[in-house]
Amino acid sequence: MDNDKSNSEKVFPFGEDLEGAAQNILIIGAGLCGSLLALRLGQRGYNVTVYEMRPDLRTTDISAGRSINLAFSDRGNKAIKLVGLEDKVKELCIPMNGRMIHDIEGKTFMSNYSGRDYEYINSISRGDLNALLLNEAEKHDNVTIDFNKKCKSVDFEKTTALFQDYNSKNEFIEDADCIIATDGAGSALRKSYYLSKKFLFSFSQEYLSHGYKELTFLPTETGDYKTYKNALHIWPRSSFMLIALPNLDGSFTVTLFLSYDEGEYNFNNLTTPEVVTEFFKKEFPDALAIMPNLVDDFFENPTAALGTVKCSPWHYKGNTLLMGDSAHAIVPFYGQGMNASFEDVVEFDKVLDQNLKNWDAIFKTYEKNRKKDTDAIADLAIDNFHEMKGHVANPIFQEKRKIEMALEKEFRNAYSSKYSLVTFNENIGYRQAMLKGRAQDKAILNLLTDKIISSDDDLKTILEKVNAETEAILEDDRIAGL
Amino acid sequence: MDNDKSNSEKVFPFGEDLEGAAQNILIIGAGLCGSLLALRLGQRGYNVTVYEMRPDLRTTDISAGRSINLAFSDRGNKAIKLVGLEDKVKELCIPMNGRMIHDIEGKTFMSNYSGRDYEYINSISRGDLNALLLNEAEKHDNVTIDFNKKCKSVDFEKTTALFQDYNSKNEFIEDADCIIATDGAGSALRKSYYLSKKFLFSFSQEYLSHGYKELTFLPTETGDYKTYKNALHIWPRSSFMLIALPNLDGSFTVTLFLSYDEGEYNFNNLTTPEVVTEFFKKEFPDALAIMPNLVDDFFENPTAALGTVKCSPWHYKGNTLLMGDSAHAIVPFYGQGMNASFEDVVEFDKVLDQNLKNWDAIFKTYEKNRKKDTDAIADLAIDNFHEMKGHVANPIFQEKRKIEMALEKEFRNAYSSKYSLVTFNENIGYRQAMLKGRAQDKAILNLLTDKIISSDDDLKTILEKVNAETEAILEDDRIAGL
Repeated sequence: MDNDKSNSEKVFPFGEDLEGAAQNILIIGAGLCGSLLALRLGQRGYNVTVYEMRPDLRTTDISAGRSINLAFSDRGNKAIKLVGLEDKVKELCIPMNGRMIHDIEGKTFMSNYSGRDYEYINSISRGDLNALLLNEAEKHDNVTIDFNKKCKSVDFEKTTALFQDYNSKNEFIEDADCIIATDGAGSALRKSYYLSKKFLFSFSQEYLSHGYKELTFLPTETGDYKTYKNALHIWPRSSFMLIALPNLDGSFTVTLFLSYDEGEYNFNNLTTPEVVTEFFKKEFPDALAIMPNLVDDFFENPTAALGTVKCSPWHYKGNTLLMGDSAHAIVPFYGQGMNASFEDVVEFDKVLDQNLKNWDAIFKTYEKNRKKDTDAIADLAIDNFHEMKGHVANPIFQEKRKIEMALEKEFRNAYSSKYSLVTFNENIGYRQAMLKGRAQDKAILNLLTDKIISSDDDLKTILEKVNAETEAILEDDRIAGL
Repeated sequence: MDNDKSNSEKVFPFGEDLEGAAQNILIIGAGLCGSLLALRLGQRGYNVTVYEMRPDLRTTDISAGRSINLAFSDRGNKAIKLVGLEDKVKELCIPMNGRMIHDIEGKTFMSNYSGRDYEYINSISRGDLNALLLNEAEKHDNVTIDFNKKCKSVDFEKTTALFQDYNSKNEFIEDADCIIATDGAGSALRKSYYLSKKFLFSFSQEYLSHGYKELTFLPTETGDYKTYKNALHIWPRSSFMLIALPNLDGSFTVTLFLSYDEGEYNFNNLTTPEVVTEFFKKEFPDALAIMPNLVDDFFENPTAALGTVKCSPWHYKGNTLLMGDSAHAIVPFYGQGMNASFEDVVEFDKVLDQNLKNWDAIFKTYEKNRKKDTDAIADLAIDNFHEMKGHVANPIFQEKRKIEMALEKEFRNAYSSKYSLVTFNENIGYRQAMLKGRAQDKAILNLLTDKIISSDDDLKTILEKVNAETEAILEDDRIAGL
């Protein structure tokens, strides 16, 4: 049964040892992760207060400088099922069955995400999904969401947070039984951890040498899509790329990933309409043909950075916890940012089911279970940056993909590529998907290079050789302690 | 010729395009790296001003919470040769030919660092070496060193630094043509980069779950060493370890590496003299027998953290540069911290020799050449933590070491283990040493496990098999894009 009622009935409101009364939980940030978490904790019976720095996106038009559509796939959907919203979310989804690769002459070919036709990803509007989650969370009397309240800092010893009201500029302090920060890559709680120096806080922020800029393919005059709807379009150009994801209104959100300062064309030297047009004419002629709005978009929209954030510990005692991007912001190239944050809520929910004795034990168990997987997806997302901008156009990579498609189609349960393990196998963690997926990739590439397999061979023979080589690679790594 | 004069004569004072007059360089920090850099830049004719936050260690007794002896090896010696101090430094060195492993019953065996008897590392006093470098730097009229001046922040746009005098508490601003921060893991310049948010600054600080505490083996009443002098002693206990390095006065500096909060005994629960003594009696009985001062040392000395710092960029335009630990602090397990910082000075000196047109070009070239190697030694040092506390006591690891010793002895120029590549092969970079060394380790461990080689085989056959397997591993990694 996929409705809120059935879900809230089968959960328990709080651990028996959590002092016997409903706990007050303060959530910082009502983005995708925060609103889903508020909904789930509301369903579980906690008293939930959420403060969001931005205005309510349901009544104000804000893009907030973030991608306006996102890839939504099985791990995210597992969380959506948990809160009973699968059908409502499905209405917002546009299936993308594969990558449509555009070469420099405008020729295209489709590279499916899986050899199994029921495995695909979806394009979804960030705003529509966030609005749905806010609406559903607010249906619970025990959930309150307040906007235009920016968190300035968190006193994690006292379990209080300092907020400022955007309109009045007044500052006020809120306390709670525990505070969960889902306030994104620039988290106020994470900053308070870092600056306090009260405990050993491991932390990293790593930027790519590339930034990104959002552009648009507008719909046709009759509201149709200007290019094939059900694909993630890629123009891979080795050191840079353009991608496009469809929106429900017939438009596509287009993103240019490009170095800030290297190469013939880069963000630092694309400074005039002439140079921008010249660049697109040379590198993306078929895209340019459907982008009369290119120059306006290019100079109106900001150029944004691509960063990875990792840190540890995520929690301070049982007082405060980082969740979602605040704990593990990743680059967008695996389409897993939102999915990973949603999966956080599923994993957190599982720990709540264990009836641990206090928040400290809950937070500790959650981080121990979860961090290895969010570290893995951060690394996988960077791998995929290189794969998308370059390898997808490389003959040996294409032969590998051809073999993997055939294996996935022929052996429904016995073979999944790295992409499938990460994207469509929500019952194994990202780390396990990474270790097995990388070993498989290495196995197939080596077997192809050494001419031990070819894409014309019998599939069963290929599968046996790939499995044996993968196992040998994993075993050698185990012995070497890698 | 190893004296200052010969060295300062053969260098040039400044690049022709650096405006024709001696450049004023401000160095923040007169530790090992800062004092060596001041000496070298003084030899090259620059006007050098150094500010150090601590008092002058030549006239004040300060340990400053840091190891009082260090491992000094070939990469560090390359820098010492560059400044003409090889003979003077040699007088401060105690050769350590290998690891002396102490098992739980107090039995010992020696595991040499190399199969070649001229390859060994040295124990050296941090204070004595620093004092020598300060004395030599101050012999240059164009070098000034000022103590008790703490850097609070750096304005990297204006190329000025804010200092506070320890005694008067007065603050003052210094400007320079460029500023080089050698102010260690807690660098004020790096903090200014991070907090400014004026450019994309990638940064990481990663702490191990273990901390360390320094203890002592005092000399005998007649001033002799209580255990074998010419070794780095290790008591490996898998999840923790004790090590000891000799000092010239007959004492050893002993360091306990132990988890803060895991395991039966940890820093958080070693809170009474009884428990500390019980722990040593059980785990390090032969060490305890020569440590009547254990309990006093244990409760007087601080417990310190073990962290790795990486960041990028190291420089801001041609105005400011991070060097040494401020750019790349590493854990101590490869004995390469000081050696890496000294090698920074050698690499920086090489770039100065290129006569580039300005500081921006010099700093950019230096970081491009150098960062890959300091990233590698950071990772190698963490590998070696696991090797030292555990693997050295593991039979297959010992068989690997036995084979490597034999190969190094038999093939003087044709084989070097990972340890030798890192420690004794100063003409290849850390990154190359890491890639080749890790592949060799994996090759030997796999060949041993698969019983393709054994330590009784003919050495020439072993070498051929190891080389072939190493090459195959590197080739497979290349194909897989690793």
